[in-house]
Amino acid sequence: MRWSQMLIPTLRNDPKDAEATSHRLMFRAGLIRKLSSGVYSYLPLGYRVLKNVINIIRDEMNKAGALEVLLPVIHPAEIWHKTGRYEMLKDILMTVKKEDKNEFVLGPTHEEIITELVSGYVSSYKDLPLNLYQIQTKFRDEARPRFGIIRSKEFIMKDAYSFDSDTVGLNKSYEIMYETYKRIFERCGLDYVIVTADSGAMGGDVSHEFMVKVPFGEDIIVSCSECDLSSSLEVAPCKDYYEGSNDKPNWKKMEEFDTPNLKTIEDISGHFNFNPEDLLKTIIYIADGKPIACIVSGECEICEAKLKKYLKTEILSLADENIIKKVTGAPLGFSGPVGLKQNIPIICDFGVRGKFNCVTGANKKDKHLKNVNIGRDFECKKFADIRYIKEGDVCPICSKGKISLERSLEIGHVFKLGKKYSKDLNAKFTDKDGKEKNIIMGCYGIGVNRIMAACIELHSDEKGIKWPVSIAPFKILLLTVNQKQEKSVQYTEELYKELLSKSYDVLYDDRDIRAGVKFNDADLIGIPIVVVIGDRNLKDNLVEIKTRNDGKSKLIPTSNLMQELKQMIDCAV
Amino acid sequence: MRWSQMLIPTLRNDPKDAEATSHRLMFRAGLIRKLSSGVYSYLPLGYRVLKNVINIIRDEMNKAGALEVLLPVIHPAEIWHKTGRYEMLKDILMTVKKEDKNEFVLGPTHEEIITELVSGYVSSYKDLPLNLYQIQTKFRDEARPRFGIIRSKEFIMKDAYSFDSDTVGLNKSYEIMYETYKRIFERCGLDYVIVTADSGAMGGDVSHEFMVKVPFGEDIIVSCSECDLSSSLEVAPCKDYYEGSNDKPNWKKMEEFDTPNLKTIEDISGHFNFNPEDLLKTIIYIADGKPIACIVSGECEICEAKLKKYLKTEILSLADENIIKKVTGAPLGFSGPVGLKQNIPIICDFGVRGKFNCVTGANKKDKHLKNVNIGRDFECKKFADIRYIKEGDVCPICSKGKISLERSLEIGHVFKLGKKYSKDLNAKFTDKDGKEKNIIMGCYGIGVNRIMAACIELHSDEKGIKWPVSIAPFKILLLTVNQKQEKSVQYTEELYKELLSKSYDVLYDDRDIRAGVKFNDADLIGIPIVVVIGDRNLKDNLVEIKTRNDGKSKLIPTSNLMQELKQMIDCAV
Repeated sequence: MRWSQMLIPTLRNDPKDAEATSHRLMFRAGLIRKLSSGVYSYLPLGYRVLKNVINIIRDEMNKAGALEVLLPVIHPAEIWHKTGRYEMLKDILMTVKKEDKNEFVLGPTHEEIITELVSGYVSSYKDLPLNLYQIQTKFRDEARPRFGIIRSKEFIMKDAYSFDSDTVGLNKSYEIMYETYKRIFERCGLDYVIVTADSGAMGGDVSHEFMVKVPFGEDIIVSCSECDLSSSLEVAPCKDYYEGSNDKPNWKKMEEFDTPNLKTIEDISGHFNFNPEDLLKTIIYIADGKPIACIVSGECEICEAKLKKYLKTEILSLADENIIKKVTGAPLGFSGPVGLKQNIPIICDFGVRGKFNCVTGANKKDKHLKNVNIGRDFECKKFADIRYIKEGDVCPICSKGKISLERSLEIGHVFKLGKKYSKDLNAKFTDKDGKEKNIIMGCYGIGVNRIMAACIELHSDEKGIKWPVSIAPFKILLLTVNQKQEKSVQYTEELYKELLSKSYDVLYDDRDIRAGVKFNDADLIGIPIVVVIGDRNLKDNLVEIKTRNDGKSKLIPTSNLMQELKQMIDCAV
Repeated sequence: MRWSQMLIPTLRNDPKDAEATSHRLMFRAGLIRKLSSGVYSYLPLGYRVLKNVINIIRDEMNKAGALEVLLPVIHPAEIWHKTGRYEMLKDILMTVKKEDKNEFVLGPTHEEIITELVSGYVSSYKDLPLNLYQIQTKFRDEARPRFGIIRSKEFIMKDAYSFDSDTVGLNKSYEIMYETYKRIFERCGLDYVIVTADSGAMGGDVSHEFMVKVPFGEDIIVSCSECDLSSSLEVAPCKDYYEGSNDKPNWKKMEEFDTPNLKTIEDISGHFNFNPEDLLKTIIYIADGKPIACIVSGECEICEAKLKKYLKTEILSLADENIIKKVTGAPLGFSGPVGLKQNIPIICDFGVRGKFNCVTGANKKDKHLKNVNIGRDFECKKFADIRYIKEGDVCPICSKGKISLERSLEIGHVFKLGKKYSKDLNAKFTDKDGKEKNIIMGCYGIGVNRIMAACIELHSDEKGIKWPVSIAPFKILLLTVNQKQEKSVQYTEELYKELLSKSYDVLYDDRDIRAGVKFNDADLIGIPIVVVIGDRNLKDNLVEIKTRNDGKSKLIPTSNLMQELKQMIDCAV
C-alpha cells in the first residue's frame, strides 16, 4: 500500500482527554477516532492491527478444536430474566424497547444465548465435549468510559463456551483454553501474568485472569516477595487472625465517650491519638434485601466480592442513611456492634478475631465506645475473610514474604461456570448411565481491542509505537529520503512491486515531503522494519535498514536486501 | 475437520415458518438457528460460508483501492437529527435510551458517521479521492421479518463510501465500484441482473441495484421483451400518454349517479359494467404536511417513490379519514377532482392525459360522477409519471416490446449521493481554485448474508444445497461407506491428513452410521466434491468422486486422486 493512497492522519499533539499512553498514541498515529464518549471508529491502520490480532486468536482457537459461530447482538430480554442477570447487570445493559414491542438486550456477553442454542442440539453424552467461540462486538453502558478503547461502550470480544458431561471434561476443556490463551498472548507480543480471580457476575467457582501490568490499570494484582502467590485483589486471601492476637487479653471496662461530628476512622484516630488498628469499622449492607453489619479492623477495607461469595449472593449494596438510622438508631458514622436497635446478623472479618479493648461507634449520634470486647459486649457467630489485602502485609500463603500490589489491565479471563446456566436454562443431556444431567460449562473471554492497547502500553517510547511484527499494521515500511531523487524512486518502485508480488505486508511512503516528517511519522506509527532509500547510499548499491524496536540501523547491499528482510520477518514473533 | 467434531445438526423436516427455499435448507443443513423473529445465530457450517463470502468481498474491495475501516454500531442520535434521517427512518431505527443519558441509534447504515469522520481529516483536494468500506452488523426494526436471514433485524452489510472533489471523480469512483460488484457476485457464483433503481432514503439521483431473480423476492424487476430496459419497479418509466388518447374526444354532459356503498374501482366497474380504464382513481396524500389529490387511471396504482421524487419530498403519507372528509367533504371512497371542498393541488398521472368522459367520485357520500372531462370539469396544471408500470404494458422505451415483471432479491445497491450528506454535515475541502466546496459522495452496499441465501436459491434441488466451490463451507468431503471397514478407514485417515497438510478445505465424515444417512447429509449440506471410499473399490485401488452440482460420479485410481482434486478445485469458480 502507498502512503499517499492510505488514510493515516498522524497528529503532532496529544488529544486533551488522553491519560493512557496507548490512547494518546492510537489517536496520534491515526489508528482510532472518537465518535462520542466510549465509542470509537477504527481507521485503516488501526483496523489492520485489529485484524491481525483476530487472525492470531482465530488460528489458535481453531487449533484448539473450538468451532467458530456468530451469535446475534440483540437478545430477547426474557432470556436474561431467566438467569436473573437482567436485574444483576441492569446498570451496564443497553436495551432497545420500542412502544409495545418486545425488549431486546444488546449482548454484553453470551452465556444465555449459547446455552439456549446448545440445549437445542445436545441430547447425549456423545454430543459432548463441545467448544464454540465467536469474535464479535459487545456493548456495556460504562458509566465512566476511560483510556480510549480500553474502557469503552462498544468493544470486540472473543468469547468461547465449553460444554462437558462431567467435571473431568470441564477441567480438560479449561486447561486447553488456558494453554491456548498463553500462546495467543505470546504471539501478540505481550508480557502477561496469570492470576486467580473472582468469577463475579459470571457465576462459577474457579477463574483465572490474564493480566498485563500497566501504570493506569484499573485492576490490581497481588503478589508476594517470596512465594508464587499471584492473585487478583478481589480473591487474594488474607491472614485468618489478627497479628497481635497472641497478646494476653486484659479486658478493660467499656466506656462511652463524646465524638462530636467525628465520623470516620481518620477523624477518631486523629483526634484521640488511637491507632486505626484499635478501631473496629462497622458497615451496614443490604444483602438479598436484608440488613447486615460487617466489621473489619479500622485500617482495612471490606472486599464486597469476598462478602458476596461468603453470603452466596449477587445482590449486595451499602445501606442508605434511612436504613442505617432504623437499624442502629444513629446517623451514618456512629454504627457499632454493641446495642444495635435491630437484631441483625453480624459478620466479623478474620482480622478482628483476637482483638480486645476496641473502639467502635456507639449507635448514638456523636458518641463512640472504647474497650469494646467481642464475646463480652457483643456476640459474633460469623467470622470470615471479607477484607482486602494491603501493600506490605505479610503473605498469608508463605507467612514470610511481603505483599505488593500492582496496577494491571485484564486482557483475558477464563471461568469454570459449572451448572449455573445449564440449570437456569434447562440445558440437559443423557449420560452413559441413562440419566438426564445438566451440561457442565466453562467460558473464556479475550478483549480483542485491549490486546492492541496493551501492546502499545508495553511497546512504545516518547516517539511512538513499536509494534511486534506479528500484529504490526505493515511489517515493512519503504521510506524514500527524497521523492524527487529519480534513482531512489525508481529503485523503490521496483522493490515495492517485488515485495507485493511475494505477498509481503509493505507500506511505501511515497509522499513528496521533507524526510524529517517521514521519519517522525515512521517512528509514530511504529512499523517494525524500515528500509530507507536515498541516492547517496544507492550509488554504492546500499540501502539502510532500521528496526523500530531497538532503534538500530545498518547498511545492506541491495543484492542481499530480499534475503535480509525474509530472515528478519521469519525470525520475529 | 472431522464431522464427529463439528456441530452440524442436520434435520429431516422443514421448519414450520419457512417459505423460501434458502430459509428451509439453511435450517435443515444446520447453517443457522433462529433466536427470535428476524434474529439468527450462525452455526459453524453457516459461518464458514459467510466468512468465504466476506473474504471474496474484502479481496475485491482491496483490489479496487478501497480502505477498510470499522465504524461504531452505536451512534449519537443527534447526528441522525442533523440529516433529518432520524425522523425519516423512525420506523426502522432501533435506539438505546437510558434515563437521562444521551440517545443512541443502532446503525442501519453509516452515511452520517463516515461523513462526520472524513470531514475531520479531509481538507484539500489532494486528500481526495478516498473510498472507505467496512463489513459490519447493521440493525433495522423490520415490522415483518421474513424468509430467514433475507429480511431480518440484524444483518451483515459491506458498506463503502466514496469521496471526490468533482462529478468526474464521482463517476469514476462509481464505475470502479460497479465493476467491482460484478466481479464479487460472479466469484460468489451468482447470476444477477443490474437495474436502474430508486435512491429512496439515501438521497442522490443515480443508483443501480444488483438483483437475483428468485420466486419469493420482494422487489420487482421490469424488463422488455424487445429492448434492454432493466429497471426496478419504482423507477421504471411509464408511457406519457393514454393509449386511447388519439380518439376524437366527444365530451358528454357530466352527470351524478348513485353508488350506495360502492367505494372501490372494482365495486363501481363491476356494478355498472364500466372498464376500470374508464375510471379515474383519486387518492388524497399528505406531502410535507399538506394535502394533495393524485389521480391515476382506474386500472393503475400510484407509485409513491415516483410521487416523492416529483414532489421533492421524503415525507409522504396517505391522508386519514378525517382529512379526506375535510378536504373532499365526503368519506373515503368517494373522492374526485370535481368540486373539492378545499382548493388543494391536483396531480394527474401522464396516463390520464387525453382521456375523456371519465367516472370519478363526486365528493359526496354514495355518489359518483360520469362524463367528467379534464379542462372542462376540473383544472389540472400538473401532469407527471406517478404510476407503476404493469405486466404486459407496451414498453415506454422502444414502444414495441411487452413489459414483464419478475420477482427478485436485492443483493447490492450503488448510489451517487452527491452533496446530500456533505452539506448537512458540513464536510468541505479546499479545491485547486482555492475555494471551499462540499465533498461529493457515493455509497455502495452489499447484503452479505443475502449472498448466501441467494446462492442457495439459485443452486439447490429437492435434496439440498449445491454450493459453488468459491463459498462452500468445505470444498471436499471424504465419505467412508462403512466406518468399520479397516482398510477404507486407514486409507481415508491418511488421505485426510495429506489434504490438510496441503491446506485443502476438507471435511471428513468419520461417523459410524449407515451410509444412506451419510449420503443424504452430504447432499443436504452440499459440499461440491465428495470422495466416496469403500473397501469394494479400494481393493482395485479405486475411489469414487461425486460432484454435487451435476450429480455425476466417476471412479478414479487412487494414484491419480490428488491430481484430480487439485484440477477440480483450480478449475472451479
